[in-house]
Amino acid sequence: MTLNYAKRMDNIRASEIRELLKLTQKPEVISFAGGMPAPELFPIEEMKKITQKVLEEKGTTALQYGPTEGYLPLREKIVERMAKLKVDLTVDNILITSGSQQGLDFAAKVFINPGDIIVCESPSYLGAINAFKAYEPKFIEVDTDEEGMIMEDLEEVLKNNDNVKFIYVIPDFQNPSGKTWSEERRIKLVELANKYNVAIVEDNPYGELRFEGEFLPAVKHYDTEGRVIFLGTFSKIFCPGLRLGWVAADEEVLSKFILVKQGADLQSSTISQMELAQFLEEYDIDKHIEKLKEVYKRRRDLMLKTMEEEFPEDVKFTYPEGGLFTWVVLPEHINARDLAVKALEKNVAFVPGGSFFPNGGNENTLRMNYSNMDEARIVEGVKRLAQAIKEMM
Amino acid sequence: MTLNYAKRMDNIRASEIRELLKLTQKPEVISFAGGMPAPELFPIEEMKKITQKVLEEKGTTALQYGPTEGYLPLREKIVERMAKLKVDLTVDNILITSGSQQGLDFAAKVFINPGDIIVCESPSYLGAINAFKAYEPKFIEVDTDEEGMIMEDLEEVLKNNDNVKFIYVIPDFQNPSGKTWSEERRIKLVELANKYNVAIVEDNPYGELRFEGEFLPAVKHYDTEGRVIFLGTFSKIFCPGLRLGWVAADEEVLSKFILVKQGADLQSSTISQMELAQFLEEYDIDKHIEKLKEVYKRRRDLMLKTMEEEFPEDVKFTYPEGGLFTWVVLPEHINARDLAVKALEKNVAFVPGGSFFPNGGNENTLRMNYSNMDEARIVEGVKRLAQAIKEMM
Repeated sequence: MTLNYAKRMDNIRASEIRELLKLTQKPEVISFAGGMPAPELFPIEEMKKITQKVLEEKGTTALQYGPTEGYLPLREKIVERMAKLKVDLTVDNILITSGSQQGLDFAAKVFINPGDIIVCESPSYLGAINAFKAYEPKFIEVDTDEEGMIMEDLEEVLKNNDNVKFIYVIPDFQNPSGKTWSEERRIKLVELANKYNVAIVEDNPYGELRFEGEFLPAVKHYDTEGRVIFLGTFSKIFCPGLRLGWVAADEEVLSKFILVKQGADLQSSTISQMELAQFLEEYDIDKHIEKLKEVYKRRRDLMLKTMEEEFPEDVKFTYPEGGLFTWVVLPEHINARDLAVKALEKNVAFVPGGSFFPNGGNENTLRMNYSNMDEARIVEGVKRLAQAIKEMM
Repeated sequence: MTLNYAKRMDNIRASEIRELLKLTQKPEVISFAGGMPAPELFPIEEMKKITQKVLEEKGTTALQYGPTEGYLPLREKIVERMAKLKVDLTVDNILITSGSQQGLDFAAKVFINPGDIIVCESPSYLGAINAFKAYEPKFIEVDTDEEGMIMEDLEEVLKNNDNVKFIYVIPDFQNPSGKTWSEERRIKLVELANKYNVAIVEDNPYGELRFEGEFLPAVKHYDTEGRVIFLGTFSKIFCPGLRLGWVAADEEVLSKFILVKQGADLQSSTISQMELAQFLEEYDIDKHIEKLKEVYKRRRDLMLKTMEEEFPEDVKFTYPEGGLFTWVVLPEHINARDLAVKALEKNVAFVPGGSFFPNGGNENTLRMNYSNMDEARIVEGVKRLAQAIKEMM
């Protein structure tokens, strides 16, 4: 039997990360591959109290269907949270999604006809690239420097292509590069989007995980015409297992996302939304985030220091000011996919960088995560990886 | 600012049910509109114990990312459950989804190019129609009688159209009609799908809610070539608030759904899946289902009896053997959308039937739900509705 699938299925391949993660579930593997938070920091005791309270006080609501837009008190909490990040919104700008991954899928569903163009940073988040590919876009990658996407290159692209639908960016501690955009570039990005009438999809899972340097408002803060679609998530600042994120957008734009949500899965889990709202009511999530930052900063420092000491000199890597990742560029003749095989033999895992470039190439790059392994494993893992690199020099 | 949306967005409108549900949230409204289970039957005390246990024993796993396919012990429980329904599968045939609604969206995403044909019962579930529309199919409706879809008509359609991708059916206590397919039709459906090489999407949220009559295996039981994609859900037999359903399919077909799941939202909630698996381990869900059936049967009996007594004679309705809905056909000159307005003035709600026909028409029909209102409100609501109908005769 051979069924006849949709054309879009030709574009969708298994994510290299998810496939790798399967191999890395053996306890002996030191994995820098996923983007997983440190499970030992999850607020389990608080969650135990919260789940009892929600079921005790509002059990029938929690287990029933709820509105597509999401649980109102949670949307209110998100409005408060975004105000702290200097983005002024009302609940009518907020849709609850099942992680920000769902927001990525919806963005493409709302905007992309086959052949339409998505502009993204080079490299960009592979989970976004994979979600977008289901809608058969073309990707144009724009290079970045230490301040973010290069605006002259972006304008060149916008000037020469009339079917760009949105610019996809991760301005804070980018996945995978770890880079952060300057304020100037954020402002200029909005100006160009206004000038060429395109949307901006701002993916911001790590913005609150800044270890040092100056706070910068989200691109959405600089939005003058309501064309920035902000994707937020509780996966990195709270727990990914609840699968809760949000889309913040202009009301008319958001109405399209709400329609898409209705068809996609009606609504996100009522009980999870109520638990999260209750947590945000009763506990200080900022204090929780402080604890995360302390631990992740220590791990980042240790990873970078060990890489400095152990990696051959012509291996380059980024110094992220926050977030979960650093990005490694190997000498051009080393293929990171081959290196991954060699590293796995030494029970060390990372994600080869090639899949972060939608149009291919750059096989001498890789992404390293530092949030999920303890300090001893970080040192040991980087040493083994350095050994594997040296064997390929 | 006017952004340029994808063409598919022209097809997607707000679901009439969801919009109606908003109006019906006032406590004074007697609503037969939604498909909501009776909240007073939710196993809240059991859930309180379960949530504690899961967080106590496996908290870090429950709050972390998990596999795209779903939590393995839950998939194992579903395999057991489906064996009881006479469908033999392994865990490799099971993908956990966020409600069966997500399975509907994925089915269209996996199979439908713009212009491809979906064959469905006439009428069919409006949430499915809306999910499918995002992929720009054509719909061909096939009439049904008391035994299900009319097979001669179906074969005519399959013979004359070479781009039918799948046949979408709800063989048990259909939404909205309440009808159940005979065994003969189930077998014939598979034969025709084999002959014309199309897939079958079997949506089965109500199959376990049979109040009387003989148990009939799912269409998937009769599947000889792995072309039946079965969509299951815990929303009607447990709680919808967790948003957990599943796709059961041939391994190769399922691999496509898994890829789509990865892009759509990575995975369903880890903690909800673990809670459900724990519930199925510790408690007897069949006993819980028995209780649901007892209550819903009583409500169905009362609704039908009151309709017999109160409705004018030329209003017809179905006698479902299970599930949540009965289907009402008014005299042709009465438009159910107008009736809905009049009924809402009397604080009674239902869903006008027109939206259950993807190609329109049939505005003299409506769907009534009997699971969500208590007995006194059922009697009172049907009486008021009868009054509204009489005012339009």
